[in-house]
Order: sequence, then structure tokens, then C-alpha cells
Amino acid sequence: RLVGPYFDKFATEEQRERFLPGCVSGEKILAIAMTEPDAGSDLAGMRSHAKDMGDHFLLNGSKTYISNGINADIVIVAAKLADSDNPHAVVLCIVERGMEGFERGRNLEKMGQSAQDTAELFFNNVKVPRENIMGEPGKGFIYLMTGLAEERLQAAVGFISNARHAFDITRDFCMERKMFGKTLAGMQNTQFKMAEMDMEIEMAEVYVDHCVELLNKERLTGEIGAKAKYLASEIEWRMLDLGVQLHGGAGFMKEYAICNLFTGSRVNRIYAGTSEVMKLIVGRHIFSEAYSSTLV
Amino acid sequence: RLVGPYFDKFATEEQRERFLPGCVSGEKILAIAMTEPDAGSDLAGMRSHAKDMGDHFLLNGSKTYISNGINADIVIVAAKLADSDNPHAVVLCIVERGMEGFERGRNLEKMGQSAQDTAELFFNNVKVPRENIMGEPGKGFIYLMTGLAEERLQAAVGFISNARHAFDITRDFCMERKMFGKTLAGMQNTQFKMAEMDMEIEMAEVYVDHCVELLNKERLTGEIGAKAKYLASEIEWRMLDLGVQLHGGAGFMKEYAICNLFTGSRVNRIYAGTSEVMKLIVGRHIFSEAYSSTLV
Amino acid sequence: RLVGPYFDKFATEEQRERFLPGCVSGEKILAIAMTEPDAGSDLAGMRSHAKDMGDHFLLNGSKTYISNGINADIVIVAAKLADSDNPHAVVLCIVERGMEGFERGRNLEKMGQSAQDTAELFFNNVKVPRENIMGEPGKGFIYLMTGLAEERLQAAVGFISNARHAFDITRDFCMERKMFGKTLAGMQNTQFKMAEMDMEIEMAEVYVDHCVELLNKERLTGEIGAKAKYLASEIEWRMLDLGVQLHGGAGFMKEYAICNLFTGSRVNRIYAGTSEVMKLIVGRHIFSEAYSSTLV
Amino acid sequence: RLVGPYFDKFATEEQRERFLPGCVSGEKILAIAMTEPDAGSDLAGMRSHAKDMGDHFLLNGSKTYISNGINADIVIVAAKLADSDNPHAVVLCIVERGMEGFERGRNLEKMGQSAQDTAELFFNNVKVPRENIMGEPGKGFIYLMTGLAEERLQAAVGFISNARHAFDITRDFCMERKMFGKTLAGMQNTQFKMAEMDMEIEMAEVYVDHCVELLNKERLTGEIGAKAKYLASEIEWRMLDLGVQLHGGAGFMKEYAICNLFTGSRVNRIYAGTSEVMKLIVGRHIFSEAYSSTLV
Ligand SMILES: Cc1cc2nc3c(=O)[nH]c(=O)nc-3n(C[C@H](O)[C@H](O)[C@H](O)COP(=O)(O)OP(=O)(O)OC[C@H]3O[C@@H](n4cnc5c(N)ncnc54)[C@H](O)[C@@H]3O)c2cc1C
Ligand SMILES: Cc1cc2nc3c(=O)[nH]c(=O)nc-3n(C[C@H](O)[C@H](O)[C@H](O)COP(=O)(O)OP(=O)(O)OC[C@H]3O[C@@H](n4cnc5c(N)ncnc54)[C@H](O)[C@@H]3O)c2cc1C
Ligand SMILES: Cc1cc2nc3c(=O)[nH]c(=O)nc-3n(C[C@H](O)[C@H](O)[C@H](O)COP(=O)(O)OP(=O)(O)OC[C@H]3O[C@@H](n4cnc5c(N)ncnc54)[C@H](O)[C@@H]3O)c2cc1C
Ligand SMILES: Cc1cc2nc3c(=O)[nH]c(=O)nc-3n(C[C@H](O)[C@H](O)[C@H](O)COP(=O)(O)OP(=O)(O)OC[C@H]3O[C@@H](n4cnc5c(N)ncnc54)[C@H](O)[C@@H]3O)c2cc1C
Repeated sequence: RLVGPYFDKFATEEQRERFLPGCVSGEKILAIAMTEPDAGSDLAGMRSHAKDMGDHFLLNGSKTYISNGINADIVIVAAKLADSDNPHAVVLCIVERGMEGFERGRNLEKMGQSAQDTAELFFNNVKVPRENIMGEPGKGFIYLMTGLAEERLQAAVGFISNARHAFDITRDFCMERKMFGKTLAGMQNTQFKMAEMDMEIEMAEVYVDHCVELLNKERLTGEIGAKAKYLASEIEWRMLDLGVQLHGGAGFMKEYAICNLFTGSRVNRIYAGTSEVMKLIVGRHIFSEAYSSTLV
Repeated sequence: RLVGPYFDKFATEEQRERFLPGCVSGEKILAIAMTEPDAGSDLAGMRSHAKDMGDHFLLNGSKTYISNGINADIVIVAAKLADSDNPHAVVLCIVERGMEGFERGRNLEKMGQSAQDTAELFFNNVKVPRENIMGEPGKGFIYLMTGLAEERLQAAVGFISNARHAFDITRDFCMERKMFGKTLAGMQNTQFKMAEMDMEIEMAEVYVDHCVELLNKERLTGEIGAKAKYLASEIEWRMLDLGVQLHGGAGFMKEYAICNLFTGSRVNRIYAGTSEVMKLIVGRHIFSEAYSSTLV
Repeated sequence: RLVGPYFDKFATEEQRERFLPGCVSGEKILAIAMTEPDAGSDLAGMRSHAKDMGDHFLLNGSKTYISNGINADIVIVAAKLADSDNPHAVVLCIVERGMEGFERGRNLEKMGQSAQDTAELFFNNVKVPRENIMGEPGKGFIYLMTGLAEERLQAAVGFISNARHAFDITRDFCMERKMFGKTLAGMQNTQFKMAEMDMEIEMAEVYVDHCVELLNKERLTGEIGAKAKYLASEIEWRMLDLGVQLHGGAGFMKEYAICNLFTGSRVNRIYAGTSEVMKLIVGRHIFSEAYSSTLV
Repeated sequence: RLVGPYFDKFATEEQRERFLPGCVSGEKILAIAMTEPDAGSDLAGMRSHAKDMGDHFLLNGSKTYISNGINADIVIVAAKLADSDNPHAVVLCIVERGMEGFERGRNLEKMGQSAQDTAELFFNNVKVPRENIMGEPGKGFIYLMTGLAEERLQAAVGFISNARHAFDITRDFCMERKMFGKTLAGMQNTQFKMAEMDMEIEMAEVYVDHCVELLNKERLTGEIGAKAKYLASEIEWRMLDLGVQLHGGAGFMKEYAICNLFTGSRVNRIYAGTSEVMKLIVGRHIFSEAYSSTLV
């Protein structure tokens, strides 16, 4: 997960100068904390809340499954704006390492990607100075939605390049592995299954490139971000499953790269918005007035 | 099936002047005859043959499943070059309506697309004048392969636009159809399944556009043509199957457009090269030296 | 569609004597009319209604997609019991050929199964004598649900035997068809795809047999009927799609049996309850208290 | 992996008395070693060999991916019969802990099932006494094939009960997990996907029961064993993938049972014969004369 578009897009000039350089250079590690134990896909259900105290906001709540949660120097925390008329008003707090009342849980043990930590975070009357509030308090939901579209496209770029990498590893394995007087590459099943994946991956590569162009032209929408994320992660997964299968017993052994790619990637259909949530977003669009039927 | 790239690419100046205008205006109907009862996917197995007699070629053999076979004024017939050293030498003969020895079978009854005729053709000592031979005699196989790549891309363009059309029809149906106090569009299953198809179709649309650009830059290869044809026809089919399913009983009734789109499109995964043959072409490429692994 | 379990189970002794012999011998053709233009899956939405007039019921409404609608001598018509406290009270009327006010629409043109007629039926103040009411007036919904479970299992038996038939036809074709110096049966793709279908069909055959045993022990439930119908029709369809594909161009030609099996069977995932409705029934059961988790 | 049918079926009376009691009681751990670094699916390619020296056989070679390889007290090792006329003659050697020349590699790190060790084994001029040869020397291949059919069915029984277990865990999770003002179980997507799995699992349960009955009647064949193993492992996998997906982020966390079931089960489509090898076995049967078409 990269620095994300949040600072670039929604931070004040001053905040950008204060935080961005460290993040970009890698000195400072950043985390984005939205998910809560009882609110993942349904972000609107979050219970963390921040109360406007004038010069600071008082932040309370807990977050979970936060990438870099343990190592982060800076955490952008989404919380409900307390006492607001609008129950959907969200505020993004920039919480820094060492702020009083900010605690971290243990590093959660995961199916894969063990190099990256994932943790629970606790906020107990954390005083977040006003200058650490990102953008306008209450508009956080819109910031998150905008940020997520871009984050999802970034993710898609990574997923599909990962898929191609897995394809190449598997191809090489098939060319090497001998059996029944041939190579595994010489079996028609291998050829057809790999051809299917090559086609799907290539199509997704072209599609993701196209979406990046849209982003560059500032024409990326929430639907497009969702589509790119969904397609890339699903096709990546099909490739990884095939990759493990074609490796035979070796696919189950950690000394083979495909094994770790497999376990590490299973989360891609889940985080940054699950495949189901991507369908929700796209489905809502399809059956809205906004969808322009080519029939008319 | 369009006029195809054959005249444009492989015909002499004189032939183009003689035949193209009529074809383009639609006065003259064109057919391309490759398939034989015992040689479809395996074109190299064709038995029709043409013997060089100096000023003409003597054509013998039969063809089957030829689109426009009944109505065609001009038929490009692929035949083996008789008495050649090279058993793969193929000659493309331009056979015209009324040539002696050229007979047509009955219009075959099909699952769909009944508006278009499909027929067997018989050639019995047909004298094909030398000026009716396309390109260089013996090089027909290369012409066909080149032509097929372009034909397949043309087909893909049609298939994917057809898929989008079926999507739109189905979407409108779902918005209208009421049940259980909602519309069919209000059911999550409908939303998710239609979202899946919208995403796949959009991805394929972008991919096919990309391939057309390659064609325009004269960078279309046999593999790319095969990929576009495979992907578009498979995704189109998934859409049509979903479209019929979401129409319920109406999907089975000929008075609904989706019913005829469905039966008419089943052939798209079969003709102009089956999905299996497309995988063969792509698979062969993947496991060749020509494939450039991104791993190196 | 067979006579169905309705007479056997819900008719009076007198009705059974009057109607069953003719139905069983085939002299009298029977139809069951539930579906209406605006109520298919959602049977509770039906608008046809029958008013109790003492010695007869007055039936009004229309039905659609009725198998044997044109040829039927006897039609069991489901209608709402007019003026009932319970909006779900349904009455099953046995309407006979020639009753005044009973009209039939045209034979609808279908994707397949053209040998069987399917039609709309209209009921305009049809006087249905009291002795032509099946079972207890108002309990029709329960009769239908019970009858449908059995009808679905009967359907499943037919679907899976059809699937095996299509498998055998396709197998024979693959053994005969020659290409690339082999037979189609000699290609690994053919072997693997046919093996997949053989396994799935065999598993479904065993399952359907098991359900028939349950029926014989009077332990068939609505869920089991739904499961058998869903599984058999979905597996049948996968076989038919593969069958057409492996036939190549021939699969699209009506002179090949597989072509008609294909178009004729597309309705099997739709009628007698769509696959979506089968999932609804099973899904409701899974997430009810009645589901007994093996975890406890 | 259980003791397997090898001792029961192919050992001498004396061997059974000597080894079985310990194995059954669990005092003695058993391993079966067939796979070699260069011979997995293609068992006939094994290079380990045993030379008949009169009172003993001299065993040389190496094996890999052997379950219990580290902990086993007794290893049944398959080796080619050296100097035999028949290149497929195989001998099964019962190698015991402590025999000279028998070495074990390290415990291989795996994607899952870390409780069970898997290791390489090395045999360097191991003297295997004649009374430790199972059955008739040279007939080992037939013993393995017979044993594998039963082992695969045993495996299938485990896989499908595992699938049901994963279903139940997931069901309970869906009933608990709240979002968007409902439970996850209240979403139609969840209901439909879980219904699909319930149906497939139930069908496979019935099928596997049926195969066990065949085994008990001594009518289990290699094809049936392959079918049961393939179907159970594939359906189990679909359930596990769905289970992880429905768990959302939790599915990626090792503290949730579904996470470990997932990684532990990926090997089930690979070991004891891969899904591809199962299709090979079934496909070979389908296109043999032995297949009895119901068409005749
Ligand atoms: C390794 C890892 C790293 C992460 N990093 C971060 C991070 O840095 N910051 C952060 O904020 N979060 C992070 N997350 C959290 C992640 O974004 C959430 O796990 C994800 O959004 C899903 O939320 P959830 O886990 O609560 O699942 P839930 O929302 O409970 O979902 C459970 C299931 O319900 C389905 N579902 C949800 N809504 C619907 C619906 N309307 N209809 C049908 N089905 C539905 C889901 O698709 C899923 O299958 C991370 C998660 C993981 C595993
Ligand atoms: C409506 C229609 C219109 C047509 N129009 C024309 C036309 O205008 N001109 C023309 O020349 N032809 C035309 N065709 C023919 C069409 O191109 C062929 O039907 C198609 O190429 C397949 O050939 P086939 O029918 O001989 O099937 P086969 O080649 O016999 O194929 C049978 C099956 O074998 C599979 N298969 C083939 N090779 C392999 C392999 N190596 N490995 C594994 N599986 C394999 C195929 O995918 C297919 O599933 C038309 C066909 C139809 C149905
Ligand atoms: C050839 C043929 C013969 C027939 N014979 C008879 C007969 O003899 N007697 C008779 O009474 N009927 C008969 N029928 C009607 C048949 O039973 C209905 O077509 C079927 O039940 C579906 O109803 P519908 O057509 O109104 O589709 P709809 O109910 O409108 O369904 C449209 C789509 O919505 C889906 N859907 C429905 N409910 C839900 C939900 N809750 N959530 C998500 N998706 C949903 C359906 O699965 C389908 O995909 C016949 C139909 C055909 C085509
Ligand atoms: C955890 C674990 C425990 C094991 N325990 C044991 C044990 O106790 N004893 C033992 O003897 N072995 C054991 N094995 C080995 C296991 O049986 C083999 O891994 C398996 O049979 C596959 O062999 P392979 O790994 O050599 O793969 P390969 O045979 O190299 O297969 C690679 C790929 O080729 C495919 N393939 C193979 N043949 C064909 C073909 N003809 N056409 C198309 N594709 C083909 C395979 O399906 C696979 O996808 C174990 C393996 C694992 C992972």
C-alpha cells in the first residue's frame, strides 16, 4: 500500500510540507485507518468519533487490520464527527507516533505477506491538534471515496503485474518440468490453461493502462476504480491458483515463489474493498439513471 | 461476415477493379470457402485441389458450412495446389456464379442466424481462368492466415458490441420486471451478475479497441487476432446466457430479442476458428522461444 | 411434463376416477396452469381469482407459458380465492375443454422443444362446478408446493438422463472425428473436458437416485426437490454446451441431435422454478433455525 | 493419511503380525514413499531401484514430499526391480527406522498443515531383508494402483467432511456478522453462494457414500477412486475459497479456523494424484472400449 493520494489531494499546504517529504523518502511510515472490528465494508457503521474541542479534536475508538499499524509514524484515522447533525459526517485525523492515548495491538498473524505488519489500533482520548485535521472536518467520507478510487487503481496495477509475474514463473516451470516423455509445457491441458490466462491477463493489462490514462486526465470515477480493482484481483487469483496447480507438490512448498505469491495474494480480493463491494458499486451504477444505455 | 481483407491485400490491381466495387456496394455477394466436410480446424487436411493447366486451373473438391454459399456471386475457394512438391501449397481461386461444374447444396438448417444462408459447395472440374487466381499460386495458406487474423478481429468487434447490446436489453428488462414487491433490478443477485458482465464487457471493449489500433498500425499478429476473437466470443456468450436466464420464461420465447441473439451467437465460439483453436495458437506462442518472459 | 402428482395426492376419490384413467392412458392431455404474465417465480403475485358461488366457482384471469395449453383437455388452474381473509388462499380449479369463457391464445414460438405446445390461456367468468375443485379450497398453495417438489425431482430424473445421452452422443462423435492426424478423442483437452462431465453427471445420477429413494420413503422435502432440480439442470447444461462445442460447426446444424438437445434444454434452468428460485429455497433453509449445523 | 490398505491387502501373514498392531495403535508411524524429485504424477519414471541379492534387496534412490517422512518408524518404499526384463517391475520395500543407509532430509516448510511433517528420504545401499518385501517382487505397480484407489476414496471422505465443516463455520459467521443494517446471512449474494455450496457438498456427500458402499462390496475401481477424489477435493476447494471470502479480512487471519483450513487444503487437489491425473484416468476410460455407451 502506497502513501496514497490523501496528502496530495486533501491536505493543506502546511500539512503537505510537514508530512509528505518524510513519507515519500520512506523515513516516515504512513498508515490509513478506516476499518473497525464492527465496520469494514460498511464504513458508515464506524463508531470511532472525534469531538471538536476548539484547538484540538478528542479522538476515541479502535481500528483493526491496519497495514503498517505497528510501524507507522503517522496514521490517518477516520472518525465520525461527534455531535454533528449529519450522522455521516467524518473527520480525518492525522495521528502521530507518541501522541498520548494512542496504543497499538499485537502484529496479527496472517495467511501471507508476513513481511508487512497488520495490527489493531486503540485511541483513548487522543488530543489531535486542529492543524492535524485533514481538509474540512465532516467531509472525510467524500475524501475517502475519492482516495479509494485512486488507491484501488494503484492496487490493480500491482495485482496485474503480479499476475504476469506468476504467469512467467509458471511458464518457466512448465518448460523445465519433465514427465511422461514430454515436458509439462507439451501437454495440451497446460497449453490451453496457460493460453486462457495469458489472454485474460493481457486484456486486464490493457484495461488497467486505460484506467491509468483516465486517472491522468482526471476522469477516474469510483466505478472505474472499482472495476479495475475487481478485474485485476480476480484474474490475478485465477493465475495464482493455476500456477500452484501446475507446480504440483512444489506449489505447496514455501521454497517455491509461487507458494508465497499465492498465500500473499488471497487478500487482494478482500482488502481495499472486497469483490462483493466492488460489484455493489458497479451494480448500483448500472441500475441508476446515470447509466446510459446504448439502446436509446 | 464482411468482404474480408482478401481482395484488398492479396488481389492484383486488375482483380480489385473487377470485383471490389460490386462487393462493396453490396450488388455482388462474396463467400470465402475454406472448410470441408473432413477439414475444419485442421485446414491443412483439405482435399480440394486445383491443377495448373496453363491458362486456367482445374478445380475439384467440395466445401461445407459456407456462409452465403447459396447467394454468393463470387466465391474465394481455397484448394491444394495439385502436383506441388510442397504438400501445404494452397491456391485461392475466385470462382464466379455460373462457372461450369460449380454446384451448390441446400441451405443448411441452423440453430440461429436463419437470415443468413449456409451451404455446401461442389466443384467438379471447374475451369478457373488464371486471372481469377488470387496472388501467387501456392502461397494461399499464408494469405489465409493473414486474412484470418484480421477477420477474427472484425468478428470480435461485432461480438463485443453484440454483448453490450444484450446487456442493455437485459438491463431494461430488469428495470421493468416486477416481483416480490421489487423489480428484478432490485435483487442483489441481479445486481452482482450484471455488474460482473458490465465489467467483463467493458474490459473487452477496451481490449478490442486496442487491437484495432494495432491493426491500424499494421502490428496485428495472428496471436492478437486469436486473443480478441476468443475473449470477445466467450464474454459475449456469458452475457447471452445471463440475459436469457434473467428474462425467465420470456428468454425461451422467440418474440423476445434475447432469445434470437442467444441462438444466433452460439456459433461465435466455433466459426472463424473455434475457441480451442484460438488457445492452440496462443498456447503455441507462449511456449515458443518468441515469448519474451518479463523475468529475464 | 408428466401428469404430476396432483390428482394422486390432492384429488377426491371421485375426481381420481373421473380424470386419472384418461390422463394415464394418454387419451386426455393435462396441463397445469400457475404462471401469469405478471407472476412467475413470485406465484403469490397471481391475480387470477375464483369466487365461491355455492355450487360453482367463478374463475377469472389469464395464464401464460402453459405447456400443452393448446392441446390440453383438462387444465388445473391455480387462482386466488376471492373474498378470503387470507390473501394467500389459493384454489385449484379443474377446467375442462369446452367450458364457457375458457379461451386459448396462440402456440408461442420457442427456442426449442417445438413439438410441445406452450400457450396463453384466458378465463372469463368460467363456471367451475364445485366437484371440479381440487382438495380444500384455499389450500392450493400448499398443494402446489408439495406437488412442485415431486415435479422437480421428476424433472431432474429427465434432465440427468438427457445429460448422459448428450455425453454418449458427443463421445461417439469424438471417437469418429479425425483431425491433425488423430481423432478428436485423442486430444487431451477433449479427454479432460469429457472426464469432468462424466464425473459430474455420474455424481448427479447417484444423487438423483438417492432423492428418488427419499421420495419413495415419503421423505422428499421442498429443499431436496429444489436441489435435485437445480443440480441436474445445471450439469445437463454444461454437458450440452460442451457437446455443441466439441461438435464444431456441426453443433450449430439442426441435422445433428446435439443442436436440438441444446436449444430444447435451455429452458430447464428456467421452468418448474428457475435456478435462482431454487437457490432462494435452499438459501432460506440454510439460514433458518431448521438447518442443523454439524458443529454443535 | 491413514495406514492405508497396503498391509491389509498385500503383506504376508507374518508381516501383518509384525507391523500392523503398532501401526493401528499409533505407536508406530507409517509412511508410503512413491514420489521422487523427478517422478510424481509419472510414477513409472521413478529411478529408485532395488536389486535382488538373495536374502535381501539392495535399495538405492531418493524420495521426496513424503508425509511423516521425519517421524516414520516404517516406510514402504517403491523402487524399480533392478535387472528385470520388465522396465515397469516395481518392488515395495518395508524400510525400518535405523536401517543402515537410510537418511532423512529436513522437514519441508509448507503452505499449510504444518502439524504434519513432509520430507525427503535418501536410501544408500540399504539392505532390505527379503521378509521385508511386500507381496511378490515386481508386482508393486499393481499393488500401488489398487492401494491408491482405496486411498483416494479415503481421502475423498475426509475432504468432503472438511468441506461441510467449513460450510458450517462460514454459515455461523454469516449469521453473526452485521453490516448495512442486516446480517451477512441476510444478503442475497451470501444466500445464493452458500446455497450453491450446500447443494454441491450434499451431492458429493451422497456420491462418496455410494463409493464407500462399492468399496465394501469390493467393487471399487481405479476410475471410481479417481472420481471421488477429484470431485471431493474440487468442491471442498470451492467451499474454502468462498469461506475465506465471506469472512472478509478475518479470512486472512490465522486466528480464524477458515484461514488454516484454506491453506491446509490447497494440497488436496495435488497429492495422492493431482486433479489432472484424475482426469487422465477417467478420460482414458471414457474413450476406451470398456466404456459402455447407453446409446447401444
Ligand atoms: C491484510 C489486510 C490489510 C488491511 N489493511 C487495511 C488498512 O491499512 N486500512 C484499513 O482501513 N483497512 C485495512 N484492511 C481492512 C480491509 O479493508 C477490510 O478487511 C475489508 O474492507 C473488508 O471488511 P471486513 O473485514 O470488515 O469484512 P466485512 O465487511 O465484514 O465483509 C464480510 C463479507 O461480507 C461481504 N459483504 C460486505 N458487504 C456486502 C453487501 N452489501 N452485500 C453482500 N456482501 C457483502 C464482504 O464482501 C465479505 O465477503 C486490511 C485488511 C487486511 C486483511
Ligand atoms: C454458421 C457457420 C458459418 C460458417 N461459415 C464459413 C465460411 O463462410 N467459410 C468457411 O470456410 N467456413 C465456414 N464455417 C466453418 C467453420 O469455420 C468451422 O466450422 C470451424 O472452423 C470448425 O471446423 P469444424 O466444423 O470442421 O470442426 P472441427 O474442426 O471438426 O472441430 C471439432 C472440435 O474439435 C476441436 N478441435 C479442433 N482442433 C483441436 C485441437 N488441435 N485440439 C483440441 N481440440 C481441437 C474444435 O475446437 C471443436 O470443438 C462456418 C461454420 C458455421 C457453423
Ligand atoms: C417452455 C415453458 C413451459 C412452461 N410450462 C409451464 C406450465 O405448464 N405451467 C406453468 O404454470 N408455468 C409454465 N411455465 C412457466 C415457468 O414456470 C416460468 O417461466 C418460471 O417459473 C419463471 O417465471 P417467469 O417467466 O415469470 O420469470 P420471472 O419470475 O419474471 O423471473 C425473471 C428472472 O428473475 C429471477 N428471479 C425471480 N425471483 C427472484 C428473486 N427472488 N431473487 C433474484 N432473482 C429472482 C428469475 O430466476 C429469472 O431469472 C413454462 C415456461 C416455459 C418457458
Ligand atoms: C504435502 C504433501 C504430502 C505428500 N505426501 C506424499 C507421500 O506421503 N508419499 C508420496 O509418495 N508422495 C507424497 N506427496 C507427493 C504427491 O503425491 C505429488 O506431489 C503429486 O503426485 C504430484 O507430483 P509432483 O509433485 O511430482 O508434480 P508433477 O507430477 O510434476 O505435476 C506437475 C503438474 O503437471 C500436471 N500433470 C501431470 N501429468 C500430466 C499429464 N499427463 N497431462 C497434463 N498435466 C499433467 C500435474 O497435474 C501438475 O499440475 C506429497 C505431496 C505433498 C505436497
